[in-house]
Amino acid sequence: MTASKPAITLGLIGFGNVGQGVHEIVNTNQAMIAQRLGGQSVNIKTICVRTPEKYKHLVQTETLTNNPNDIFTDPDIDIVVEVIGGEDPAYDYIVQALSHKKHVVTANKELIAKHKKTFFELAKQHDVDILFEASVGGGIPIIKSFKVGYSANQMQSVYGILNGTTNYILTKLFEDQQAFDTVLKDAQALGFAEADPTADVSGLDAAYKIVILTAVALKLDIQIDDVFYQGIDAIQLTDIQYLNDMGFRVKLIAKATRVMDKVFAAVYPTAIPVDHPLAMVRNEFNAIFSMGNMVGESMIYGKGAGSLPTGSAVMSDILDIAFDIKAQLSRRHLETSLGTCPVLSIDDNQTEFYIRLSVSDEPGALEKITNTCSDASINISKLIQKERLNNTATVVILTSQVAESAFNSFKQKLKGLSVVHAIDAVIRVGL
Amino acid sequence: MTASKPAITLGLIGFGNVGQGVHEIVNTNQAMIAQRLGGQSVNIKTICVRTPEKYKHLVQTETLTNNPNDIFTDPDIDIVVEVIGGEDPAYDYIVQALSHKKHVVTANKELIAKHKKTFFELAKQHDVDILFEASVGGGIPIIKSFKVGYSANQMQSVYGILNGTTNYILTKLFEDQQAFDTVLKDAQALGFAEADPTADVSGLDAAYKIVILTAVALKLDIQIDDVFYQGIDAIQLTDIQYLNDMGFRVKLIAKATRVMDKVFAAVYPTAIPVDHPLAMVRNEFNAIFSMGNMVGESMIYGKGAGSLPTGSAVMSDILDIAFDIKAQLSRRHLETSLGTCPVLSIDDNQTEFYIRLSVSDEPGALEKITNTCSDASINISKLIQKERLNNTATVVILTSQVAESAFNSFKQKLKGLSVVHAIDAVIRVGL
Repeated sequence: MTASKPAITLGLIGFGNVGQGVHEIVNTNQAMIAQRLGGQSVNIKTICVRTPEKYKHLVQTETLTNNPNDIFTDPDIDIVVEVIGGEDPAYDYIVQALSHKKHVVTANKELIAKHKKTFFELAKQHDVDILFEASVGGGIPIIKSFKVGYSANQMQSVYGILNGTTNYILTKLFEDQQAFDTVLKDAQALGFAEADPTADVSGLDAAYKIVILTAVALKLDIQIDDVFYQGIDAIQLTDIQYLNDMGFRVKLIAKATRVMDKVFAAVYPTAIPVDHPLAMVRNEFNAIFSMGNMVGESMIYGKGAGSLPTGSAVMSDILDIAFDIKAQLSRRHLETSLGTCPVLSIDDNQTEFYIRLSVSDEPGALEKITNTCSDASINISKLIQKERLNNTATVVILTSQVAESAFNSFKQKLKGLSVVHAIDAVIRVGL
Repeated sequence: MTASKPAITLGLIGFGNVGQGVHEIVNTNQAMIAQRLGGQSVNIKTICVRTPEKYKHLVQTETLTNNPNDIFTDPDIDIVVEVIGGEDPAYDYIVQALSHKKHVVTANKELIAKHKKTFFELAKQHDVDILFEASVGGGIPIIKSFKVGYSANQMQSVYGILNGTTNYILTKLFEDQQAFDTVLKDAQALGFAEADPTADVSGLDAAYKIVILTAVALKLDIQIDDVFYQGIDAIQLTDIQYLNDMGFRVKLIAKATRVMDKVFAAVYPTAIPVDHPLAMVRNEFNAIFSMGNMVGESMIYGKGAGSLPTGSAVMSDILDIAFDIKAQLSRRHLETSLGTCPVLSIDDNQTEFYIRLSVSDEPGALEKITNTCSDASINISKLIQKERLNNTATVVILTSQVAESAFNSFKQKLKGLSVVHAIDAVIRVGL
């Protein structure tokens, strides 16, 4: 950490997709990076992987090791780049790195979502930084936007498309008019979905990310259990088409928003108006909207995954730290001061709903349904009878805004009607 | 500039729309800003305006003056915020401020576009900063995105909607199907266009902004004369409708792009595909796309004008400088190292074209036109005959990509055809 230090030196833990992206960027943009750092270069010295021999053909001057202590105890290494993902052993590696006074850059959303407070305190204690731009939105510099771009704003809400896999699937469902399982298989074959797609499809991945954005944008510390999340596995092509007819596109929206003196954080499939900019976000792209008390509405959009985009975000953190090392400055970052705030339950969420029902095709059936609506004080903004088949009619209803708890009681009452054969789908509407 | 300094102190020059926005943000978000600065507050001490008495009702503790030297020579003042706009006397004020070792934050696009090199050198010489986030894209933190978010990328191109007034007009033209003059008058009445809208409508405003983005994103120093610009005053509703039928939306696009070893910078009305995210940018919003060699395609979107959004951008610069003052750090900013590069002429620009012709409604007329196309090696990707009226047919043609110079010769040949009564419109197509 002296000014005469010839280069900022990195140790990589993990050398998969993202690690190799960082390696490629360090090599390809080396001259440019050195120029931006006023002549100081950035070098990777050591790479820690489980099976070093497997990666020999990919490296030139870097040392491969399977012992992470080679990195933690190396006085040359300034920054540890953790890109193995998952909780174990990555948690221990980050704790080790910080305790050895190494700056840490990580792409690990699960770890940051779960252990941000511990990491921030440990980093402060050892006077080093932990940065995690790549943990949300791949190459999109969303965390830096809140830190420096919107720094003069109180953010009211942050919401958007944070998972590329599910956005790819929803795009294909709609555009190719195929069933969920077919699209998922294609996505897996193309590398847009993992062999086990559970974390993406269930909404858990986006839930981790909204926990992080709640910290970064709203400056509030919430936990993964505070986030209501629901995935896209129950989404059917029929509903995507019916909602399209009504002017909506279905997207998996993650959001965190201040509601009076509480915070609400959730991930669920949402029907959004086709002319909203988020409706235009296709395939594996991500986009994040935010509302600040001064700047108003903003959006940032880009590639949510991939070796080089994610590597670009990791490198931007490395350059941030490198600037500080060069200036012999220790600049504590802002997320260390996180507030707490009560969490609004999903039951109190106010939203519009789309419902699809199978109903007896008989006189008076619709009347019974509309009566149930008015008894439950649910306002119908649209009711459309779709197909009729074998004495069963398909009916879709769009409600006006209602609390989830009230909607759930209403749903029970609907189920109790003899003319209602089934509630086939429920999708929340509006941002 | 000592660590014990009780507050970061501002002097404002100008107290119009943007200046009052900064004032409101300093007051409204005071506690939050102090918290982000680790306890240090930001105060406005002095405001310089031509007629101080006019503003007395708007200020509390601030001193109003009509003498800018009260700001330049005040040892308490750390940062001069120039928000009067225009070249004269703002240029002198910035030179004075920098020469008095004051940091400068400005929203002045014309000045930065014209005098960036002078200002950067002067700032370096006096070891202070000049920041100008608010000069492009209003509240959108576009300059900070290139500085910190995409810092590990070589940017290939930057393009987008940089002028809110013209985007508002084009949106209304299309959505309300009204003529240009009607829409302009409404925009003026609503405050979305100035009484003299020339700088906006002619494309000059966007041209200044693309000069700045060329410096910030591509790290190249170009001048306003290097930018080919063309406004929206010749855009007719007919063409907006015809292009809509073909799947395009007309937007005023500013762009700077590396083409081989040259740079091309231009502003002109462009027909872009309706499913491109820029096509969704409505009313006074701005959006900027960029392509980086690692991160790929990104977009950032938000309010391109207005008191509080622009004030938010000014304040983000103030906070950046405040951090550095607090850390007793002088951090030279990146744009000081600008390269030069030959500029590609508009004649060598490769683009598709949309042309609308009035043609004799007689046998063989279309054949003469298509022959002229093939003689000039212009490939037609679409030719549609629209209305026929009084022996005149309206024909629209969409070409494939061609150099502007070749297209211009072709246009001359078309004009020479006896069957062509007039070339009524030419609009470039594609991003």
